[in-house]
Amino acid sequence: MCQLLGLNSNLPTDICASFSGFRARGGRTDEHADGWGIAFFEDGGLRILNEPHPSCQSQLAGMVAEHPFQATNIVAHIRKATVGTVRLENTHPFSRTLWGRPWVFAHNGTLVDFVPRLEGDFRPRGCTDSERAFCWLMDGLQSRFGDVRPDFDTLFAWLREAAVTLSHYGVINFLLSDGELMLAHCSTRLSHVLRQAPFSRRVRLVDTDEDCDLGQGVDPATRSVVLTTVPLTHDEAWVGMPAGSLWGFRDGRVLATVPTVAGQVRQPAEACA
Amino acid sequence: MCQLLGLNSNLPTDICASFSGFRARGGRTDEHADGWGIAFFEDGGLRILNEPHPSCQSQLAGMVAEHPFQATNIVAHIRKATVGTVRLENTHPFSRTLWGRPWVFAHNGTLVDFVPRLEGDFRPRGCTDSERAFCWLMDGLQSRFGDVRPDFDTLFAWLREAAVTLSHYGVINFLLSDGELMLAHCSTRLSHVLRQAPFSRRVRLVDTDEDCDLGQGVDPATRSVVLTTVPLTHDEAWVGMPAGSLWGFRDGRVLATVPTVAGQVRQPAEACA
Repeated sequence: MCQLLGLNSNLPTDICASFSGFRARGGRTDEHADGWGIAFFEDGGLRILNEPHPSCQSQLAGMVAEHPFQATNIVAHIRKATVGTVRLENTHPFSRTLWGRPWVFAHNGTLVDFVPRLEGDFRPRGCTDSERAFCWLMDGLQSRFGDVRPDFDTLFAWLREAAVTLSHYGVINFLLSDGELMLAHCSTRLSHVLRQAPFSRRVRLVDTDEDCDLGQGVDPATRSVVLTTVPLTHDEAWVGMPAGSLWGFRDGRVLATVPTVAGQVRQPAEACA
Repeated sequence: MCQLLGLNSNLPTDICASFSGFRARGGRTDEHADGWGIAFFEDGGLRILNEPHPSCQSQLAGMVAEHPFQATNIVAHIRKATVGTVRLENTHPFSRTLWGRPWVFAHNGTLVDFVPRLEGDFRPRGCTDSERAFCWLMDGLQSRFGDVRPDFDTLFAWLREAAVTLSHYGVINFLLSDGELMLAHCSTRLSHVLRQAPFSRRVRLVDTDEDCDLGQGVDPATRSVVLTTVPLTHDEAWVGMPAGSLWGFRDGRVLATVPTVAGQVRQPAEACA
């Protein structure tokens, strides 16, 4: 299994505090030492920093934890290899271009015997079940909707069916973003927290036991949602997302959530805010 | 205009010394202060570090100059915006996936009124003439050869015709790589130098006036070609590539070179080594 970290915000913001705790899971506070990566959406552009090495020891990851890259959407991943060798090409997040914009995907879990037929530009570069799932999603979106990006409700409904299908092959916690939307599927374990003014001035990072000020240098108008496999801080109202639920976020708000298994999804009080 | 830097090597090697001089051109020794980027091919994977800021002041660029990322192919670019705003999405090098592998492209020059019709996944994310040219090349390769990557001679012959076509629209010095091949077109200005054992123990960087040891920590079996808009060092045998010539490199060797304008291309003595 691996670890996920995501951000969706109405204004560009950094994730230094959260990432400084998150990166410790790459070999120090957890065993996920087979690589790490982080994707920043900046305006219409995308920057991905990644390495097939433990993030807790990485000079590059250290710089990411200190350098306030500003982004409205961020997808980060720490890898424990279950399928695929330890190589850069197998390191999440993965990226492809669809409808003229970059899409990014990171996966926690393992899919068994998921070997769809893929052609064209959505063929995997590496050999992970995760990249196959991403390419299958991109291929499906293009096949279903052609050259025109559908509206959110249509896209979300299609993605729900796709998540149900993928769930038949195993555990598929994922974060998927095009720089505007953050689409998150909780198969077994994923939490999120809302951060907005007034910001917590003092929260303690679970992984480093350090205090940090979430409001430092942040525009008071910023409203963001942070998603992660395991809550990063004490002293914050993390919402455990129900197993078998798909979520859509934009501008730091929950747009929608639907179950991807039988039964209703519990609606966290703030989820519909 | 912009500045290009490329590496093609038979063994993974770093480009720290060359990049430390190159990055100074991003606002210090030259005026190209509108962004920078560098792509490293590591095994089958790709890492691109980029910013829409001057490389000479960038913390990230400083780390790249010090951190020995090992790669067999590297494409770097420093931007002076001529077409397209100063944004991350307009920062070279650009990347797309074709035939299941990443391709990277960086351009020096300006194409006038080059607005090809592009569809599918090879549509530009930004608004530069450079990304349009790259997408047009990727689209053309896929349209011509379908899902099967052609052999080098076939690919090179097709790319020559494409370079001739692009040259009708303006200046198109470019570096194009899929992690195995380095394809370089000199429209007006591009040079390369061969680096192999015995390595120069003491060369002076043109941009920083510092000395460096090209053999330090390098496997003696390494053979690499470094390409750049303007030679980076004194004391090395830089080969000025003829205006209107396309070059193909693999494993630090020249595979082929052909003219993209009327007349013969001068064959540098070592070019056929």
